[in-house]
Amino acid sequence: MSTSEQNRFSIIVAGGSGTRMRSVIAKQFLPLFDKPILSHTIEKFLSIPENKVIAVLPLDDMNFWEDIIESNEILTEAVEAGKLKTVVGGATRYQSVSHGLAAISENEGLVAIHDGVRPLITIELIGNSFREASQNGSAVLAVELKDSAREINGQKNHQIDRSKIRLVQTPQTFDLNKIKAAFALGEQSNFTDDASVFEYAGHSVHLIEGDYRNIKITTPEDLEIAEVFMKSMK
Amino acid sequence: MSTSEQNRFSIIVAGGSGTRMRSVIAKQFLPLFDKPILSHTIEKFLSIPENKVIAVLPLDDMNFWEDIIESNEILTEAVEAGKLKTVVGGATRYQSVSHGLAAISENEGLVAIHDGVRPLITIELIGNSFREASQNGSAVLAVELKDSAREINGQKNHQIDRSKIRLVQTPQTFDLNKIKAAFALGEQSNFTDDASVFEYAGHSVHLIEGDYRNIKITTPEDLEIAEVFMKSMK
Repeated sequence: MSTSEQNRFSIIVAGGSGTRMRSVIAKQFLPLFDKPILSHTIEKFLSIPENKVIAVLPLDDMNFWEDIIESNEILTEAVEAGKLKTVVGGATRYQSVSHGLAAISENEGLVAIHDGVRPLITIELIGNSFREASQNGSAVLAVELKDSAREINGQKNHQIDRSKIRLVQTPQTFDLNKIKAAFALGEQSNFTDDASVFEYAGHSVHLIEGDYRNIKITTPEDLEIAEVFMKSMK
Repeated sequence: MSTSEQNRFSIIVAGGSGTRMRSVIAKQFLPLFDKPILSHTIEKFLSIPENKVIAVLPLDDMNFWEDIIESNEILTEAVEAGKLKTVVGGATRYQSVSHGLAAISENEGLVAIHDGVRPLITIELIGNSFREASQNGSAVLAVELKDSAREINGQKNHQIDRSKIRLVQTPQTFDLNKIKAAFALGEQSNFTDDASVFEYAGHSVHLIEGDYRNIKITTPEDLEIAEVFMKSMK
């Protein structure tokens, strides 16, 4: 890779247990049509040229995950080509992302951090995210609110201008050097995503247009909704 | 009706045109399983004891709506029993609600205002809404955010505490006298729902727990999602 713009990495965080899905299988492995949710997600990121993918999974899921890779030609080839590797996650999402970043020896380039259970992300949006991050230092997918919103203030609440609020999705893509330095500052209790880590380190966050269909699958109904969206996107 | 608590009214606002649904049929009339969206919604409100329902529809849809009522035994009986009437909507949602309120001659009691295209509302939540409004003067369904949120400030944006934000749904239920007086003050440009009208008149808004499945159907995908939710709620 000749220039820093060409160093592209993606960390796919797939650390969740399956409890909210009423399933003994961790939710990222549940089938969405023909294959596990996580396989859909990772295949999307492998479609991006010059992108190396780091999957972060709980230790207990490693054997199961290796079986999935073996049964999937795209994933198997990516592993053999050095385009896909897997690292063990931590106790929190923050720690899992830290483990993913630690697996990247380069300091120059861009890294997209994405939830493994958001399989409806499109190749176009991932591409937008890398391009905008290369120009702005970060690119975080976000969508507007569909409903009216109110803000709670103790016992009271008041109408707020919903046009000023954005709901944040992933991928959240960052300058590699800056996000590594941001994670080196340590975990804070108010971190809810990687953008909040980046912001805590003093950087401004650049928002780009997400997609309402880019949902995080956390309930059985979400899985059915994902099927509806996936059909409509074909 | 012996006490003011027993005067219960519901205004079902069904004024939308069908353009976003890529359909010539207005979206409230699209079939959800066995019957139109609006019929599902109104049947839920007719299940509440001592509740009179006022449907607000565009003038152009009146003939079609009367055909729907005729083919539906529950709706036909409700009309004959004086429990369901229909009034013509206005140019804006605010005006449509005003027309609904004008059709209620009583001043004492409670009125639930609800979107016709939210058919997944449950009888339990409507009941909660009336009960809480009778105790607090208002009751507005709201849900927490599932994703991280950021607030836009000019060119900048910053993380906000998502636990303080609520997304507002319907029904929004109010003391009849107070909401009539609030609507008499006239339309403001920042009104996004009936709670904002109530708040503008100087009243505090009481929020109660809504349901993520209580979606507003505005796109073809929403209709498919509504089918998923309706199946899971049976």
